[in-house]
Amino acid sequence: MIESEVSVTFEPQGRMVRVRPGVTVREAATRAGVFLDYPCGGQGTCGKCRVKAMAGLSEPASDEQALLTPEELTSGIRLACRAAVVRPVVVTVPDKSLLSTTYKILADSSGPAAVGSDPPVRRVHVEMNAPTLEDDAADLERLLRHTGPLAVGRDVLSVLPAQLRQSGFCGEAIAVDGELIAFDGGVSRKPYCVAAFDIGTTTLVGVLLDPCTGVERARASRMNPQTSLGDDVLSRILHTRQHMKGLEELRAMAVAAVNEMCLDLAARAGITPQAIVQIIIAGNTTMQHLFAGLDPGALGEVPFVPAASRSLRIPAKETGISIHPRGSVYVFPVIGGFVGGDTVAGMLTTNIAESQGPVMLIDIGTNGELVLHRDGILWATSCAAGPAFEGARISHGMRAAEGAIEEFIFEDDVRWSVIGDVRPAGICGSALIDAAAGLLRLGIVLPQGLMLEPGQLPDNLPEAIRRRVVSDASGTRFVLVEASETSIGSAIELTQADVRELQLAIAAIRAGFTILLRRAELGIDEVEHVLVAGAFGNYIRCENAQRIGLLPHGLPPSKLAFVGNTSLSGAHLAALSLSARERAESLAQRTHHVDLSLDPHFHEAYVEAMFFPEEDATEMTPSGRP
Amino acid sequence: MIESEVSVTFEPQGRMVRVRPGVTVREAATRAGVFLDYPCGGQGTCGKCRVKAMAGLSEPASDEQALLTPEELTSGIRLACRAAVVRPVVVTVPDKSLLSTTYKILADSSGPAAVGSDPPVRRVHVEMNAPTLEDDAADLERLLRHTGPLAVGRDVLSVLPAQLRQSGFCGEAIAVDGELIAFDGGVSRKPYCVAAFDIGTTTLVGVLLDPCTGVERARASRMNPQTSLGDDVLSRILHTRQHMKGLEELRAMAVAAVNEMCLDLAARAGITPQAIVQIIIAGNTTMQHLFAGLDPGALGEVPFVPAASRSLRIPAKETGISIHPRGSVYVFPVIGGFVGGDTVAGMLTTNIAESQGPVMLIDIGTNGELVLHRDGILWATSCAAGPAFEGARISHGMRAAEGAIEEFIFEDDVRWSVIGDVRPAGICGSALIDAAAGLLRLGIVLPQGLMLEPGQLPDNLPEAIRRRVVSDASGTRFVLVEASETSIGSAIELTQADVRELQLAIAAIRAGFTILLRRAELGIDEVEHVLVAGAFGNYIRCENAQRIGLLPHGLPPSKLAFVGNTSLSGAHLAALSLSARERAESLAQRTHHVDLSLDPHFHEAYVEAMFFPEEDATEMTPSGRP
Repeated sequence: MIESEVSVTFEPQGRMVRVRPGVTVREAATRAGVFLDYPCGGQGTCGKCRVKAMAGLSEPASDEQALLTPEELTSGIRLACRAAVVRPVVVTVPDKSLLSTTYKILADSSGPAAVGSDPPVRRVHVEMNAPTLEDDAADLERLLRHTGPLAVGRDVLSVLPAQLRQSGFCGEAIAVDGELIAFDGGVSRKPYCVAAFDIGTTTLVGVLLDPCTGVERARASRMNPQTSLGDDVLSRILHTRQHMKGLEELRAMAVAAVNEMCLDLAARAGITPQAIVQIIIAGNTTMQHLFAGLDPGALGEVPFVPAASRSLRIPAKETGISIHPRGSVYVFPVIGGFVGGDTVAGMLTTNIAESQGPVMLIDIGTNGELVLHRDGILWATSCAAGPAFEGARISHGMRAAEGAIEEFIFEDDVRWSVIGDVRPAGICGSALIDAAAGLLRLGIVLPQGLMLEPGQLPDNLPEAIRRRVVSDASGTRFVLVEASETSIGSAIELTQADVRELQLAIAAIRAGFTILLRRAELGIDEVEHVLVAGAFGNYIRCENAQRIGLLPHGLPPSKLAFVGNTSLSGAHLAALSLSARERAESLAQRTHHVDLSLDPHFHEAYVEAMFFPEEDATEMTPSGRP
Repeated sequence: MIESEVSVTFEPQGRMVRVRPGVTVREAATRAGVFLDYPCGGQGTCGKCRVKAMAGLSEPASDEQALLTPEELTSGIRLACRAAVVRPVVVTVPDKSLLSTTYKILADSSGPAAVGSDPPVRRVHVEMNAPTLEDDAADLERLLRHTGPLAVGRDVLSVLPAQLRQSGFCGEAIAVDGELIAFDGGVSRKPYCVAAFDIGTTTLVGVLLDPCTGVERARASRMNPQTSLGDDVLSRILHTRQHMKGLEELRAMAVAAVNEMCLDLAARAGITPQAIVQIIIAGNTTMQHLFAGLDPGALGEVPFVPAASRSLRIPAKETGISIHPRGSVYVFPVIGGFVGGDTVAGMLTTNIAESQGPVMLIDIGTNGELVLHRDGILWATSCAAGPAFEGARISHGMRAAEGAIEEFIFEDDVRWSVIGDVRPAGICGSALIDAAAGLLRLGIVLPQGLMLEPGQLPDNLPEAIRRRVVSDASGTRFVLVEASETSIGSAIELTQADVRELQLAIAAIRAGFTILLRRAELGIDEVEHVLVAGAFGNYIRCENAQRIGLLPHGLPPSKLAFVGNTSLSGAHLAALSLSARERAESLAQRTHHVDLSLDPHFHEAYVEAMFFPEEDATEMTPSGRP
């Protein structure tokens, strides 16, 4: 069942992904971080997700023929939700098909964000008159006539007189956050850059940007090396408490990784790391504390208080980051101990505080973060979903790496696709959701989470599927992949215990959802959009996530939108606009931090959320595809 | 002629000086840096300079008996300008006798300046509620509820969570210039201090202050070690140009000296240098550049442009100053290449910009600085007087150190007093002025500067004085001290060449005076006050300085006031008030920098000023005492 993958390139974003043939353009686009608008939920009924490709896609289906004119079809116009990838293909995405056009997303990770009218980095070419007896203003004040007021450090000022005289009082002033960090004589323009980072508990992603045009120059990612000292934030906080130099050890790891990424980004863009004049850091509160070397001890005990909630601006030298000698590090403001800069960045990216109707932002991960906006009021909370979606505590769970099954399709039998050209070794989060949703639809798993034994199964099950349910002394389980097809020498299964683990993870997120709605006195029907953030969101099948209740069950698909890594895109925004930083500060301050454990209704909501939704109103086939 | 000195202590200033018996209380007070108001010029006619002493002064003179009631005399009230010191004495100075009461001087170097309403250093005792689930604000924001908004560095923030928890959320926040630099748990109050420095070309003076009360904790001074690499600013600028590491060498010398003084000040006050949280630096433009490590090259060539004219605030660590780890250095703004932070500090101290009538501020030194205020407009200039007043280029000139004659009195013969209990080795600036004035009054030196030969002398000269004029192949000269009375094996003389040198020094300052008056379209009669600044000013006899034209000849003595080391007292003010710094910035910006060499009238004024004033209207005796 392993199929060779083909490339799909999206223009004008310039993003390429590899997918197996048969995957829809929609799915490929989502994986590439190109977010189209699917008002009908991808059911092929609204015709909004138009893209253009001259060859490489499946023949137009009947619904495409109904919604598109013959002229459009001839010119290569297709619907992303219906057209499937057949061969390597270049897909052009019109602006009006993008989610950012209809839902005002300020930046997504798929293209250059506009540089604000108040860019943090300014390059001002200046041609001054040399001093004379009649005009004997000091060197700095002479320069500032052309740049406007700027702060200046001793080291820059120290060499300014010689630089001005060597260059004949012509050159370029480089200002960052209102500080003169360099004067370059003459007309040569050095390739100054800024870098935006999403510092995740597990993954670090960085993007190098031209600070004047906003153009992305390079992108890099790597594992967070701190994982070697603990998988989640609490284990890392514990490490700082149990080891004398624990904080410094974790800090040094994060800094080393960011330094390596700066080197990597610079190399890809053909510049030196010293040309990077500022880096932006967005991450959860603990990651930001560890990066900045702030004592995270109080984050590990009730009431989980950060050292500071506002943004920090630290000289790069002081953090150990090796960029421009007068470079600086901007660290996002946070809302609370478990609602961090990554969430603030997400709020910034999605412009959630400006939404007309009620909007929920949800970032699914080991720690789930939820933000709700209604009529100018913002609530945010976090819920410990646990690492089930990262593969942990699931019998055959694993991260979304080579050998991980990333998708299950339930038809007459179970089909699957694996990451990489290898035999499967386990299942990652998106496949876990598919599996659970499939078993629920087939009636093999009941809403309360019970997996039926072979003798209790519904009559109408396909025989191939029925044979996969086994039960013995160790309990009931569903064989997803036979031992003969795996690389691990045994079958890949979903056990009753796995289902229970998943129930706990989902319950935490659903309860958070419920409590926030209750705070805002809203029914789920009144929510206009649910924005799903995080890299994970890109890979899950919406209908399956709804079927198991991870995303609100019963919500029309048109109200769901995947918005990608909003932590990175928020950092991207803050790298290019001072007013974006002001908005971030304001968002962090004004958002109500809801502590779920304090809410009188939490326990009830959590217990209710332990049950999978009773039935699937939109369900048409067991695969989740209508 | 060497007499033993006696101590005079001034209260409430707590200043003590040693003078020889017979010196007036006025002179002792001036030397002690206690500035009384003498509206009549110290002629014993206005009765304003009242002080109180129960014993130790001369018997009341007839003018004191005329101006004071018998009750006042019985209670020890005396006139400082008439009463002479006889024995060790404690003199109490009523507030209303102080110059600062009538002429609004903001601070003199004689007593504590008031702490401004906006002190740069704030100590805020805080008792916070510990975080709870209901109030889970971050640590920093919790603290700032009590202190108001403050910036904070990474290092302080890093340890704050642990500090707050160890101290039970009670302690003291220390803020400098709006930045939180420390949190001290508990109730112990550390002895934080600030230090103000006058960084002179030749001498460094520093004072340690309590930043909350303004009380002086200690005082220290020493030679500027840079003198080993050049006596004046130009030779030091040259050193930076001729030696690769010249700037760094000079910077390190200044920094080392200030560090030593910080150690010294701290030791005297019983604190550690780490308790000093900020130092204030006022000096001429070149000294400030060298201290901050700014390239002074452009200060050494036309048009003498500073690197920056505004104030600088530099982390102490970056300057190499070893004080509090988050301590900082404030460096005064400057007006131009040769009108520096010391002059701005003087303008600040004397409040010259607020004077009702026209006021001139003059600082006599190797480089003379002049400021004139009229109707809200300020002009400043500098003139190269040369080092004559420091003893250089004068046959028997020397600094005001042990062995220097500091005063000459011309009566039937020449009397003199020497610094220290030693035989004289030379003459310092104040004695040079006395000698020249005495010879002018006696007609031995003519207004054009010619020293008469023995055969040309006036008939009415006392015989003892007449014998002192000698003439031979090497020229004409006046023997001030016979060889038998000196420690150098030869006589101490004033030569024709010395008189010429003095003429040049005076001419530079007088021409500056003339040009500034011309700019302001003022006659000298219209000037309400001439304020004489600088340590040197304290030691010169006003009448003699006027006789030789160093101070404006013909100006009523009531218009002259000695205001001491205004560079230090301005630094003192800036140490205690942010608004004083704002005023300094504004003064530096709004003052017109007058370049004498550019003025079309300078040459004419300079030539005119080469002549000593024709006659002395106020003269009564050759000693200069009316």
